[in-house]
Amino acid sequence: MPELRRDPIVGRWVIISTERARRPSDFVSQPGVRRSNGPCIFCPGQEARTPDEVWALRPDGGAPNGPGWRVRVAPNRFPALRIEGELERSGEGLYDRISGVGAHEVLIEAPDHDARIEQLPVSHLAEVLLAFRERMIDLARDPRLEYVMVFKSHGDQPGAPITHAHSQLIATPIVPMMVEEELAGGLQHFRIKQRCIWCDIVRQEHGGGRVVIEEQGFMALAPFAPRVPFETWVLPIGHRSSFEETPGEELLALAGLLGELLRRMAKTLGDPPYNLMLHSAPLRARALDHFHWHLEIVPTLTGLAGFEWGTGFFINPTPPEEAARYLRGDTV
Amino acid sequence: MPELRRDPIVGRWVIISTERARRPSDFVSQPGVRRSNGPCIFCPGQEARTPDEVWALRPDGGAPNGPGWRVRVAPNRFPALRIEGELERSGEGLYDRISGVGAHEVLIEAPDHDARIEQLPVSHLAEVLLAFRERMIDLARDPRLEYVMVFKSHGDQPGAPITHAHSQLIATPIVPMMVEEELAGGLQHFRIKQRCIWCDIVRQEHGGGRVVIEEQGFMALAPFAPRVPFETWVLPIGHRSSFEETPGEELLALAGLLGELLRRMAKTLGDPPYNLMLHSAPLRARALDHFHWHLEIVPTLTGLAGFEWGTGFFINPTPPEEAARYLRGDTV
Repeated sequence: MPELRRDPIVGRWVIISTERARRPSDFVSQPGVRRSNGPCIFCPGQEARTPDEVWALRPDGGAPNGPGWRVRVAPNRFPALRIEGELERSGEGLYDRISGVGAHEVLIEAPDHDARIEQLPVSHLAEVLLAFRERMIDLARDPRLEYVMVFKSHGDQPGAPITHAHSQLIATPIVPMMVEEELAGGLQHFRIKQRCIWCDIVRQEHGGGRVVIEEQGFMALAPFAPRVPFETWVLPIGHRSSFEETPGEELLALAGLLGELLRRMAKTLGDPPYNLMLHSAPLRARALDHFHWHLEIVPTLTGLAGFEWGTGFFINPTPPEEAARYLRGDTV
Repeated sequence: MPELRRDPIVGRWVIISTERARRPSDFVSQPGVRRSNGPCIFCPGQEARTPDEVWALRPDGGAPNGPGWRVRVAPNRFPALRIEGELERSGEGLYDRISGVGAHEVLIEAPDHDARIEQLPVSHLAEVLLAFRERMIDLARDPRLEYVMVFKSHGDQPGAPITHAHSQLIATPIVPMMVEEELAGGLQHFRIKQRCIWCDIVRQEHGGGRVVIEEQGFMALAPFAPRVPFETWVLPIGHRSSFEETPGEELLALAGLLGELLRRMAKTLGDPPYNLMLHSAPLRARALDHFHWHLEIVPTLTGLAGFEWGTGFFINPTPPEEAARYLRGDTV
């Protein structure tokens, strides 16, 4: 059984997936990136190779776990957390652990093995966002769960052997540290100012040099203090703390902006690998005045020191004003 | 002029090194790792190729910026921060910046181009640690500086083109976020318990399954909630908040343990790249009851998802009890 463990000093929870324990020899060799040419486990007709689906969009009907879907969500075959079992909390002196109860799902974004989300029709990308929302709403019904992390790793990256376009959801019985930090920072600002700090950021940035795209109620922004070159945030301009309360027409507007942003990144930067993360309010905390959901898109560009993630201290050679200018396509 | 910028939500300071601004085309190509066969800029006889040295150990004498040194410290040729200039703080609405005043030095660990610190004589590795200490003491004299980060990136990693064994020091006018978080967590524990949390960890771990090495006043420990497989901490067993107050005989004991640990890691894991970071108390905060200096060693192993640093949420397939067992060399 996997377990969640808390660092007693900074309060960071990590998943120790004990049943996937690896021996040192598993790390020694440097395997080449495997690419299958045949249909992969996420391709239509291969549905039986994943666990039974938990959500799918079949516009023309069809039975579950068969072809005909446009977006499909199934449990991860090698889940980091398990949906079965009791939520058990225990202590051991200074240390705290929680049994590894949770959900780990893959969200297959399109049937086509070579699809890329930024090249999908806007309505299809909106359906991907709809799948995020629907899974979050469904997982929120499980009282053991406190948070749903939604993320996407695009491109050649260690640990991401499947290239068929997909995102992942991990639902946890704790709120991850990076969201706790944002909640704390947002609350501190709200207590002093009686305003949401992300709303303040949107107001201050409006029309300025760090805005990449601003349209239909959303803003793509190169943040003031980006950790890495071309880090970009996407925020709704109007205040909303929980992504899962986004109505359908706003998902369509978001899909339009996100697709445009990802196309510009791919073109400007030569299709870099990137991680996309959704930061939404905890499941049990609806309608917070001091939190504002957003997407963070962090490209993994070459020539950057690996020590920066390790140390938590970032040296960024590209000012966000420059990054935004390139992504806007301004003549240089 | 580079500048430090603060993320207004979580309070993380990043260095924006504007004068090294890169164009997108700098990131597009994937350069191969360059390895020179000839003497590199850190080799003896090449001293004129670095800025004038700020510290060196020449056991047999000799002039500065010439050969004869065993450990040598010089400013980085491409510094992330600059020692010249006024410390200027400014605000812009929600945002805060500080002019990029600080120091960025390289600490060349041995004359031999192919030296590895874990294969140096213990007395030589102790001299490397002495160089850390002496530079921290010297930099603390500059009232503009609040913190000295000491770190080492070993092995093939992006942004680390020079293979000649070296560490780096970056002195900053702010305290980095990861240290602030540890200070806050340590203070919270101290206020409740009137004990240092790291001292409590050392007491709880003593003789247990997560201890890798414990000898001569130091402990190498697989922490309870490691972010990545084989993350290892090194702590003095006795309480001390500032590394720079470590007397010479303790540096020798630390060198013995650190060399042994790095040899075991290289042997067990097949010489992985790793980052080593020193976490010490801020320069202006001597003798804190609630902080305890330590080293963090974070190997970069293959087959691990890159999303984890990006999201701040870690899934670790190797429990620390297993990692410690391998590093102790227990029969499996």
